[in-house]
Amino acid sequence: MKTVYNFNAGPCVLPKSAIEAGIEALKDYKGCGMSVIEISHRSKEWDAAMAECEALWRELLNIPEEYKIIFVGGGASTQFMMIPFNLLESKAAYLETGVWAKKAFAEAKLNFGDKAVKVASSADKNFTYIPKGYEIPADADYFHITTNNTIYGTEIHKDIDSPVPLVADMSSDIMSRPVDVTKYGIIYGGAQKNVGPAGVTFVIVREDLLGKVSHVIPTMVDYRTQIKEKSMFNTPPVFPILIMSETLKWVKANGGVEAMYQKNVKKAALLYNEIDRNKMFIGTAEKEDRSLMNVCFVMNKGFEDKEEVFMAFAKECGMVGIKGHRSVGGFRASIYNACPIESVEALVTCMQEFEKLY
Amino acid sequence: MKTVYNFNAGPCVLPKSAIEAGIEALKDYKGCGMSVIEISHRSKEWDAAMAECEALWRELLNIPEEYKIIFVGGGASTQFMMIPFNLLESKAAYLETGVWAKKAFAEAKLNFGDKAVKVASSADKNFTYIPKGYEIPADADYFHITTNNTIYGTEIHKDIDSPVPLVADMSSDIMSRPVDVTKYGIIYGGAQKNVGPAGVTFVIVREDLLGKVSHVIPTMVDYRTQIKEKSMFNTPPVFPILIMSETLKWVKANGGVEAMYQKNVKKAALLYNEIDRNKMFIGTAEKEDRSLMNVCFVMNKGFEDKEEVFMAFAKECGMVGIKGHRSVGGFRASIYNACPIESVEALVTCMQEFEKLY
Repeated sequence: MKTVYNFNAGPCVLPKSAIEAGIEALKDYKGCGMSVIEISHRSKEWDAAMAECEALWRELLNIPEEYKIIFVGGGASTQFMMIPFNLLESKAAYLETGVWAKKAFAEAKLNFGDKAVKVASSADKNFTYIPKGYEIPADADYFHITTNNTIYGTEIHKDIDSPVPLVADMSSDIMSRPVDVTKYGIIYGGAQKNVGPAGVTFVIVREDLLGKVSHVIPTMVDYRTQIKEKSMFNTPPVFPILIMSETLKWVKANGGVEAMYQKNVKKAALLYNEIDRNKMFIGTAEKEDRSLMNVCFVMNKGFEDKEEVFMAFAKECGMVGIKGHRSVGGFRASIYNACPIESVEALVTCMQEFEKLY
Repeated sequence: MKTVYNFNAGPCVLPKSAIEAGIEALKDYKGCGMSVIEISHRSKEWDAAMAECEALWRELLNIPEEYKIIFVGGGASTQFMMIPFNLLESKAAYLETGVWAKKAFAEAKLNFGDKAVKVASSADKNFTYIPKGYEIPADADYFHITTNNTIYGTEIHKDIDSPVPLVADMSSDIMSRPVDVTKYGIIYGGAQKNVGPAGVTFVIVREDLLGKVSHVIPTMVDYRTQIKEKSMFNTPPVFPILIMSETLKWVKANGGVEAMYQKNVKKAALLYNEIDRNKMFIGTAEKEDRSLMNVCFVMNKGFEDKEEVFMAFAKECGMVGIKGHRSVGGFRASIYNACPIESVEALVTCMQEFEKLY
């Protein structure tokens, strides 16, 4: 097997143990003589698997009983609609910190018009920072944030104190650092970065926030539908959930979320330090708001013409997925939980070798 | 590995070749040095995989260009909402042939009230037959049917001639028999019976039907969102789609949909003949409406007390998933495409052996 250093932004590198467990489950699930994708989702085997997955979430993030956890398809993009349908009665406040935050806000506006308001935005500087000093309207039904901005490499590092229920898209930093779940009304995200493969979305919701809107909620949009049936109102995305469970087992076996955080701080420091030191590169995000997950950088002044040359050089070194999003340009290394420090070291070496050429 | 005869109603038995291809793709996808669940969905490798999947659908079902095919999460239950949101302006007509047909109708009613009308129902006889002789309202925006009723074991065997766009939930009989796609406006279903594992839903839609409603359609509910981006508006359920492709390759390699149909007719005849012959069992569905996919039967008069005894006996013989749904009772053998005739023969032998005991 070819050696590659996987910096994909999501889907992305996953723990080897999770993939191996997936392979075993595909062959013969728990000795039942069938593949895990051939068993009934109403079987006692699958009931146990769902319960195990939920228990891992609760343990790793210390999620209290009054919060329910559901696993559904559709991605975070589907949640952009589900959140206002479930919570928005008179006003919803949004913080605009990037493409996904914009989409979340746009979806609330599409369906509920001017009831959705933008509290602050960092669009003025191409989302290179996290807005500060804004006021969260105290009469809003909720305040929506995107904790990590995958495309721009910025991150809200602290749990915000909000006077209204805080709703957070944590698609790209869930499980990467400890969070105080009790400070949030809803935490949601697509699994395909830190907690599994594409095809499953997690929603952690404080149950008492539900059932307060006056409009009709379509059955599959209503969180209560899946809460009531423990994510088994209809057939769940079985295999993605299985890999999610195995990914969480790996997090647990490796010290839990606090240990992930320590490792992530170390990996990010290694790479940001090199970007700051190396004359050929420069980071795009404000230093205080730099993401621990997605490290964005471009060629420094005087080296702008070397972008394609470095991309080719990095590819030769085995780097995969470091092309920056078109709205930022340059490079982006996504260093999620399962990205080993050896990959980051290899990228740093590659950047140093490249510098020596000029 | 334990020998089992898998009659699960879905998720269900899948082609061995599809599972083996899934295992290989998990190990190292096309020699790229990463698992298929670790690669970017924006990579050329995954673009090719999506294109291949669509091409297989088009080839196997002879789907014309004016129909678009999308692959999304959420299951058929999510489509129950999406269909009226996309098509319902003044009136929608529904045929009620079982639990899923009822749910589809209920969802249209929940969101659009009395604009959803029920044309006919077989609820009077616990859905043991398909209603006939009803009239489809010529002023309806569409007519919704469920072609195969998984729980009750009935099936609409012919493509209906409808004066308005025909919308069909084919979750449990897609690819089991030839259909004339041009007779339908939309064909949709969860993959987890004949075309793959849980976690992906297919929608085949005649594009000119879209964009005609006056209400707001949420972005992820609007078929045009995924049509425009070829099911890649957001991250698709990668692994379920891969297994779907591999399942379709197996259908193709085994002679296509017509060959599946011939095999399915043979399997169903074998089992129904035994039910009709064996003094201890009796079928629940009207003979002319019997499903080729889900064979439902109960203990015959005089043997009602033997239900649990047969269940235990069948389990000893290696039968899995033959317990009938609670709304019918008794037994249900789901004999989808990938169920080998050997499994049906084993069940028939088991029923014959059981009869000899009494």
